[in-house]
Amino acid sequence: MNAGKSIALLQVAHNYESHGRNVRVYTSARDHRFGSGVVTSRLGPQRESLTFDTKLDFIEDLKGQPELSCILIDEAQFLTPQQVRQLHKLAHTGDVPVICYGIRSDFLGEAFPGAAALLTLSDSLEEIKTICACGRKATMNVRVDEAGRRITTGAQIAIEGEHRYIQTCGSCFYSENTPHAP
Amino acid sequence: MNAGKSIALLQVAHNYESHGRNVRVYTSARDHRFGSGVVTSRLGPQRESLTFDTKLDFIEDLKGQPELSCILIDEAQFLTPQQVRQLHKLAHTGDVPVICYGIRSDFLGEAFPGAAALLTLSDSLEEIKTICACGRKATMNVRVDEAGRRITTGAQIAIEGEHRYIQTCGSCFYSENTPHAP
Amino acid sequence: MNAGKSIALLQVAHNYESHGRNVRVYTSARDHRFGSGVVTSRLGPQRESLTFDTKLDFIEDLKGQPELSCILIDEAQFLTPQQVRQLHKLAHTGDVPVICYGIRSDFLGEAFPGAAALLTLSDSLEEIKTICACGRKATMNVRVDEAGRRITTGAQIAIEGEHRYIQTCGSCFYSENTPHAP
Amino acid sequence: MNAGKSIALLQVAHNYESHGRNVRVYTSARDHRFGSGVVTSRLGPQRESLTFDTKLDFIEDLKGQPELSCILIDEAQFLTPQQVRQLHKLAHTGDVPVICYGIRSDFLGEAFPGAAALLTLSDSLEEIKTICACGRKATMNVRVDEAGRRITTGAQIAIEGEHRYIQTCGSCFYSENTPHAP
Repeated sequence: MNAGKSIALLQVAHNYESHGRNVRVYTSARDHRFGSGVVTSRLGPQRESLTFDTKLDFIEDLKGQPELSCILIDEAQFLTPQQVRQLHKLAHTGDVPVICYGIRSDFLGEAFPGAAALLTLSDSLEEIKTICACGRKATMNVRVDEAGRRITTGAQIAIEGEHRYIQTCGSCFYSENTPHAP
Repeated sequence: MNAGKSIALLQVAHNYESHGRNVRVYTSARDHRFGSGVVTSRLGPQRESLTFDTKLDFIEDLKGQPELSCILIDEAQFLTPQQVRQLHKLAHTGDVPVICYGIRSDFLGEAFPGAAALLTLSDSLEEIKTICACGRKATMNVRVDEAGRRITTGAQIAIEGEHRYIQTCGSCFYSENTPHAP
Repeated sequence: MNAGKSIALLQVAHNYESHGRNVRVYTSARDHRFGSGVVTSRLGPQRESLTFDTKLDFIEDLKGQPELSCILIDEAQFLTPQQVRQLHKLAHTGDVPVICYGIRSDFLGEAFPGAAALLTLSDSLEEIKTICACGRKATMNVRVDEAGRRITTGAQIAIEGEHRYIQTCGSCFYSENTPHAP
Repeated sequence: MNAGKSIALLQVAHNYESHGRNVRVYTSARDHRFGSGVVTSRLGPQRESLTFDTKLDFIEDLKGQPELSCILIDEAQFLTPQQVRQLHKLAHTGDVPVICYGIRSDFLGEAFPGAAALLTLSDSLEEIKTICACGRKATMNVRVDEAGRRITTGAQIAIEGEHRYIQTCGSCFYSENTPHAP
């Protein structure tokens, strides 16, 4: 479930820090794949991070902090719409860039509410591309079981490990034969 | 409430038609500013179009139509999320490009449900830029009365003519002094 | 030879002027298709403009001008690399946005020197898309004679009217059968 | 001299290979910082690669190769314009994506000829952002000596180690005070 979002976040943090600037990195408290409070990438690099759950108030959390040059948020689809508004307000009244990395839609093609809020309010949207098994650009996230069979039931958020996810293009998403076995 | 979305749609239609290709153009039935079924632009050019209301089933509407090279939709924020899914499915199973033009958020910064669905599912997102009165890039839509005073109450969709809209940047959106009188 | 660049320029000028801001519009003095000093669009709208030839010094030309909110340049592939440096310097030392519209390559796929300089120095690059007759995105410019036959000889800049241009995708550009008759 | 281009290349290679697809990776033979034939990133990951010098004919080099899903080229500013044409032709007649990573301009703001050719012919342009010491987006590359003093003489290509490079925004590029000491 990773097109390179986490490595992109780690690179941006590195760019800021190489200029002696402070960044503050959060990831979702839900994400227990590699341990809470770590932004991890498939390529290897990782770093410790703060975590957010649905109750964190970012405006409160950032009060009294030393001057920040950038706030970076991984797994941003798990933000609540209220948290996205807090971050939007911080960016525009506190003059600190906020860069969020996440996926747009769940295994049924439905929006994550936080992702929809980010897409609605962001000043700038950038796509991190990955490919479908068929070779086209992947835009959708399909849930499969351990045998690679597609699952179309269950909660929007399911702990990875029990379920797995693969990225597909829109055409494969609607095809009977999806997913392609890896 | 127009950064150039309608003129962009008209240009794309022109590009396809100059190659002898068929396009099908829709606008919202809600939009009675210049008459139902017309895509209009501030710069002058306009063209007649089909309209959609919230009940239109695009899959049904396009059955039996001659081959289309492109479907173009203006005022796309008024699509329902179900209609966006229909269009997404048409694009990926019927192999016809669907290009939608609209705004993202209402006068309070809340998502239009159809816009959120489009942002979630689109294969490609492009920004049509306009400026805030302060000179920065405008990303928000503020509702004002006839005297130019900001209005922060009322329904998400209000007929233009009674209310007016101005585009602002995020900073001016959160500022006490917004909107700038035009 | 127009994917909508001129209409995009006219819309941006309109956006600035609707906020009471001053813009300064130039087009190439070479472009005599519709008369010197007019930015014209296929959709109809047009406006008078200043012109530049290869000798104009933009820094000199803009000295003593009233405050500008934007400089807009059409047919920007005809700028010299030196003029592009002048405009880049103006943008970064004079704090005025400069937006240039043009094509990238000539009928043989070779760079226009001014376009190459713009692509090298621009802070932001945006594509205005149009389609090839085959339906793919057009990126190349093919020269044809009055009968629609491809011409692969002649000067980089030839007055339109004698020659015509069509946009093609990269695949059609390399194909024997290009251009498609319109 | 690295905003994250190499890590982006490594991630794309990983994405293809995780689908069991073949990629072919090249870097410039000039780049001896970390050893010839290795794509390296500041974050740590690296991989062995093929190298290109100015004499390599990519069309010849790829004849008889097993089917490729992607060609990836690092340090692409060192390609010759002729090599860029070869790659453009391969992409459009051989139907293999070619993705090139590089910088646009040298320490004086002049184009690398290969970069100008890439910017001219590419079907799609994407920016990998990094920041200037002042906090703005960096677009320029400034050469400095070991004491951090700006150098404005010398060859376009100088072996790193003797010289160092820092990224700056356009405003700092034209400022007397550039570069900021790191």
